[in-house]
Amino acid sequence: MNSKNNISNEDLLARSRELAGKTSLSELTSGSELHSAITYHQAALGSEARSRLCIHAGIALGLPVDATVNLAAAVETLHNASLIQDDLQDNDAMRRGRAAVWKKFGQDIAINATDLLLSNAFALAASAGPIYAHKLVAIMNRAVARTLQGQTNDLHVGQQPGLDQAIAIAREKSGTLFSLSLELPLVMADYQESLSLARETGTLFGIGYQIFDDLQDREGDRLSGNTANMALMVEDNAVSKYQANTAEELAYYFLNEAASGAARLPRGCGDLLIEKCSALLHKLEREAA
Amino acid sequence: MNSKNNISNEDLLARSRELAGKTSLSELTSGSELHSAITYHQAALGSEARSRLCIHAGIALGLPVDATVNLAAAVETLHNASLIQDDLQDNDAMRRGRAAVWKKFGQDIAINATDLLLSNAFALAASAGPIYAHKLVAIMNRAVARTLQGQTNDLHVGQQPGLDQAIAIAREKSGTLFSLSLELPLVMADYQESLSLARETGTLFGIGYQIFDDLQDREGDRLSGNTANMALMVEDNAVSKYQANTAEELAYYFLNEAASGAARLPRGCGDLLIEKCSALLHKLEREAA
Repeated sequence: MNSKNNISNEDLLARSRELAGKTSLSELTSGSELHSAITYHQAALGSEARSRLCIHAGIALGLPVDATVNLAAAVETLHNASLIQDDLQDNDAMRRGRAAVWKKFGQDIAINATDLLLSNAFALAASAGPIYAHKLVAIMNRAVARTLQGQTNDLHVGQQPGLDQAIAIAREKSGTLFSLSLELPLVMADYQESLSLARETGTLFGIGYQIFDDLQDREGDRLSGNTANMALMVEDNAVSKYQANTAEELAYYFLNEAASGAARLPRGCGDLLIEKCSALLHKLEREAA
Repeated sequence: MNSKNNISNEDLLARSRELAGKTSLSELTSGSELHSAITYHQAALGSEARSRLCIHAGIALGLPVDATVNLAAAVETLHNASLIQDDLQDNDAMRRGRAAVWKKFGQDIAINATDLLLSNAFALAASAGPIYAHKLVAIMNRAVARTLQGQTNDLHVGQQPGLDQAIAIAREKSGTLFSLSLELPLVMADYQESLSLARETGTLFGIGYQIFDDLQDREGDRLSGNTANMALMVEDNAVSKYQANTAEELAYYFLNEAASGAARLPRGCGDLLIEKCSALLHKLEREAA
């Protein structure tokens, strides 16, 4: 990726952020608690990894700039809906260094904010391209349903999930929105035949990323007794079916598989995901050294 | 409406109910708590007033049967999402004579079930007609946002709302889905110019229906001290701006206005709403006699 392209994608990211913000507030009363909660949540930016992937894919596939911006805003809006809800359901008081929405505005406002952003995500996707709207909405609905099924499994997994169970949950919970960031642009570029590869690639990345993340938290979680850490689980489980004996090898496995899937996506639309995999793999290597 | 038409609309209602059920479960794991909660909620039918209005309007406007069924399923699915969430937020333990979803399955499942149905509603609307999908989704998104703004106002209204405030809340909370039942078919029949009349008509009906309902509960609410009852509020408020001195007159006013709006909608698509208004007005008259 050249620097000119980088700048341009950053511009699109800013436009996507602005569109998502404008859409979310358009029917709300300024000064109302819901308006304040949405504004508050959006003021602290996250990594925007999903909208970046989506923008890269849209541009690589030759989609119109406006459509790409809409899809990226849709994916990021859906991600924000899931964060507000996850924090509430997991009782996590902090998000992006500040009080989570439910902690600051209460449970009811957090629930309403989630609904609003979920609804907005569909509107943003549907307005990306009229003749593709029904397909984009259908794919997004399936992604939401899979994520909710994953969350439900996670809520009821108990204190001691097995590694396979944890991987199955990460598959649905963490991977779905990464997949969607690739699926939506592919649908609009008429690469229907690449959707299942995109779905699997995003899923593998989601699992790999989750294990990578758990590796960073391993020693802290060991001390605090958080047994949901997948890197800790590996120590107690046979993981030979993934050709891995350690958590590091398991993370390698999924990130390598994700990169290999991304490389087979059309027109280099998965290149940013490959870069992301490489960066994580490189970090793992440095830490092992 | 002849009886042949009545039977046919009942058939469409059954098809719409079946489609909504099938859509909601399609990505879920049988036996999971989320699957069970959705199945449980859908097993007890409500009045299906919104899907009936939508089916009547779709057929009156000459829409294809499949599209009409999709729109009705979308509206009813959105209504069910709002019921599950309202019960949770209002701490209402009963719905349709059984334990509410949150009471039986817990808060997290109720939240996830709401998300799923909200998401499904968009998918159902979008699949009603590919070339109208983006417009249907945009209208639904605005309706969801207005409803959420209404709910948020309701949550923060305190124990003693004034009548005007209560009417403003009923306007957003109760009216929006009745409006949507007319708006969606009108969009697909290319009656864009009738949308604002449909929105206002559904809203007036929602307010009138709410006051009618509160009239039925007036003496019980008086005894239990539920001051949120609009019929009780009228006794303490000047309501001359609505040409009404009693709660009965206020209900008359809104239901008459709704019927008058419905009569001006194209091709008799508001006729079922007029019937509904007439039935309520007739009941008010009998009770006054």
